[in-house]
Amino acid sequence: MKRNPRPLSTALALALASLALAATPAAVAADAEPIQPLEPAKVTDPAKVELGKKLWFDPRLSRSGFISCNSCHNLSMGGSDNVAASVGDRWQKGGINSPTVLNSVLNIAQFWDGRAKDLADQAGGPIANPIEMNSTHEAAVATLRSIPGYVAEFKSVYKVEAIDIQQITDALATFEATLVTPNSRFDQWLKGDKTAITDVELKGYQLFKTSGCVACHNGPAVGGNMFQKMGVVAEYKTNHPAEGRSAVTGNVIDRFTFKVPTLRNVELTYPYFHDGAAQTLAEAVDIMGRLQLGRVYSAEENAQIVAFLKTLTGDQPQITMPILPVSSDQTPRPDPFAPIVAPGRR
Amino acid sequence: MKRNPRPLSTALALALASLALAATPAAVAADAEPIQPLEPAKVTDPAKVELGKKLWFDPRLSRSGFISCNSCHNLSMGGSDNVAASVGDRWQKGGINSPTVLNSVLNIAQFWDGRAKDLADQAGGPIANPIEMNSTHEAAVATLRSIPGYVAEFKSVYKVEAIDIQQITDALATFEATLVTPNSRFDQWLKGDKTAITDVELKGYQLFKTSGCVACHNGPAVGGNMFQKMGVVAEYKTNHPAEGRSAVTGNVIDRFTFKVPTLRNVELTYPYFHDGAAQTLAEAVDIMGRLQLGRVYSAEENAQIVAFLKTLTGDQPQITMPILPVSSDQTPRPDPFAPIVAPGRR
Repeated sequence: MKRNPRPLSTALALALASLALAATPAAVAADAEPIQPLEPAKVTDPAKVELGKKLWFDPRLSRSGFISCNSCHNLSMGGSDNVAASVGDRWQKGGINSPTVLNSVLNIAQFWDGRAKDLADQAGGPIANPIEMNSTHEAAVATLRSIPGYVAEFKSVYKVEAIDIQQITDALATFEATLVTPNSRFDQWLKGDKTAITDVELKGYQLFKTSGCVACHNGPAVGGNMFQKMGVVAEYKTNHPAEGRSAVTGNVIDRFTFKVPTLRNVELTYPYFHDGAAQTLAEAVDIMGRLQLGRVYSAEENAQIVAFLKTLTGDQPQITMPILPVSSDQTPRPDPFAPIVAPGRR
Repeated sequence: MKRNPRPLSTALALALASLALAATPAAVAADAEPIQPLEPAKVTDPAKVELGKKLWFDPRLSRSGFISCNSCHNLSMGGSDNVAASVGDRWQKGGINSPTVLNSVLNIAQFWDGRAKDLADQAGGPIANPIEMNSTHEAAVATLRSIPGYVAEFKSVYKVEAIDIQQITDALATFEATLVTPNSRFDQWLKGDKTAITDVELKGYQLFKTSGCVACHNGPAVGGNMFQKMGVVAEYKTNHPAEGRSAVTGNVIDRFTFKVPTLRNVELTYPYFHDGAAQTLAEAVDIMGRLQLGRVYSAEENAQIVAFLKTLTGDQPQITMPILPVSSDQTPRPDPFAPIVAPGRR
């Protein structure tokens, strides 16, 4: 599975936003809404999804044998870890707030700075990141090749004799692409059920459009489809060292520019922003209003927008925990407490 | 749910073992087998089980917000973590190899030294253990009380207004009691399907009985129902500091005496022994033979016993991951990297 229909371009998004700003809320036709309902995932290769799910939960992809993808993108917790900075190998502090994996297939690119073009490109990152899972692609491949259950399953799914890292990241990406959350109350409203959200929530949505939030948070994922500077109107004050997109493009103009996060399931993915500094939705809405839109929402307005945002919580993926293939006598035995031979490497 | 029918007493177990030793294998009637089939869990209060499952997966019971019960008793990995020593708060090294949670309801007592009388008594331990989850019962209760979803669910299940630690550990124990693994191939054989295990596996079982393993590993859980000294015939050499049951009883005679672990699903629960020093079943069987029985198994005998042990892998619990109740704005926000105010406490 690949990234879905091309995300809205920034230009189109801004045009839609202008439309929203210009029109009175009541005049906006349903089919002109800047947010579209999420569609359920289409699973075309269930065996590959199942394999990817096993890898997702398998801590043997980490040096320690303790950390799995699900450690920081917990599917019981909105696909996030609900802490400002994630815990990595040997309790190292993560470099940036872990974004949710839910609906990440809709993102224009992966990571906050967009340095991975798609989910498969992203999946190799944490495995080898010295402050995250701190393994190597070579070690991950060697481990999986020593596990008969995986050997058989990769052979069945990929029709190859030897497991490689491309298959690992492809299977992970295929599983991740199924992690979409349709059927939120707001989607029900978008699809015509006008009783699906309350008057306060509808007011929040109207304000979300008229005050300009929708300029960046639009499309099926209510975000994820463009990059934007953190601090458009006023500077965002943080001690966090992340420079954002400029680290990828090399352009100073991209400094403090990050991928606009999806607001799907945002109720579940606290704390907020790339530094995880905003603990509550009320705080995040307030800061976004001031810094991105130059607007100070009243307490009532803030509460309305927060109420709207909570209507974006969709059906969470129902995940049956995989039973992982058992290690063989030849499988390397991880030791979380082993001395590090070289910095960042076992 | 409480502990199942009283485990076999040590005396009875030894009597059965003597019977096994005395009789030729062919003469042992099926109903005299020293191992009994596992029965599926009887769920009498599904709502309580579901609540316990949520708590099982909830890292907010830990100081860091990162470690849950499932971190060290991973239900994807035989209810264990497959490392010799577990990872605790701030990557502290666990004091003893994490035993499997599977079939632990059948244990005569909990922990390797039996210091907890039952699962509820055990469940409070790791939450407050400074090198494990490193929270306090007070903090865990305060966190859950701040989460509206939990407040409503505890009220519904326990008919009380305020969550307390007894309800938390009771719900966890109720969930854990469902984690039994019936229908192993060996159980199928015990129930009369003589094709369920191979000739080699049967030879392994016969050797398991005639050479005396069954003296300690008997009953439905193939262990778990008595304490035994580690190193009966010869001393077990280890640098591990655990003293075993003497720490509970105060009797020097109980030094290096531990609860006999269940061998159910033992294929999945490597590494072995209280110090996790044996990496493979072959190694564990060899050491047990020498130290507990004064017997050196030939390579063929060792392989037969290992083959038998692998028939003890039963149906693993099918667990649908819970969607955890969302924190409120009042819920304490865990910070894995916060300075420790007092040693072992936040």
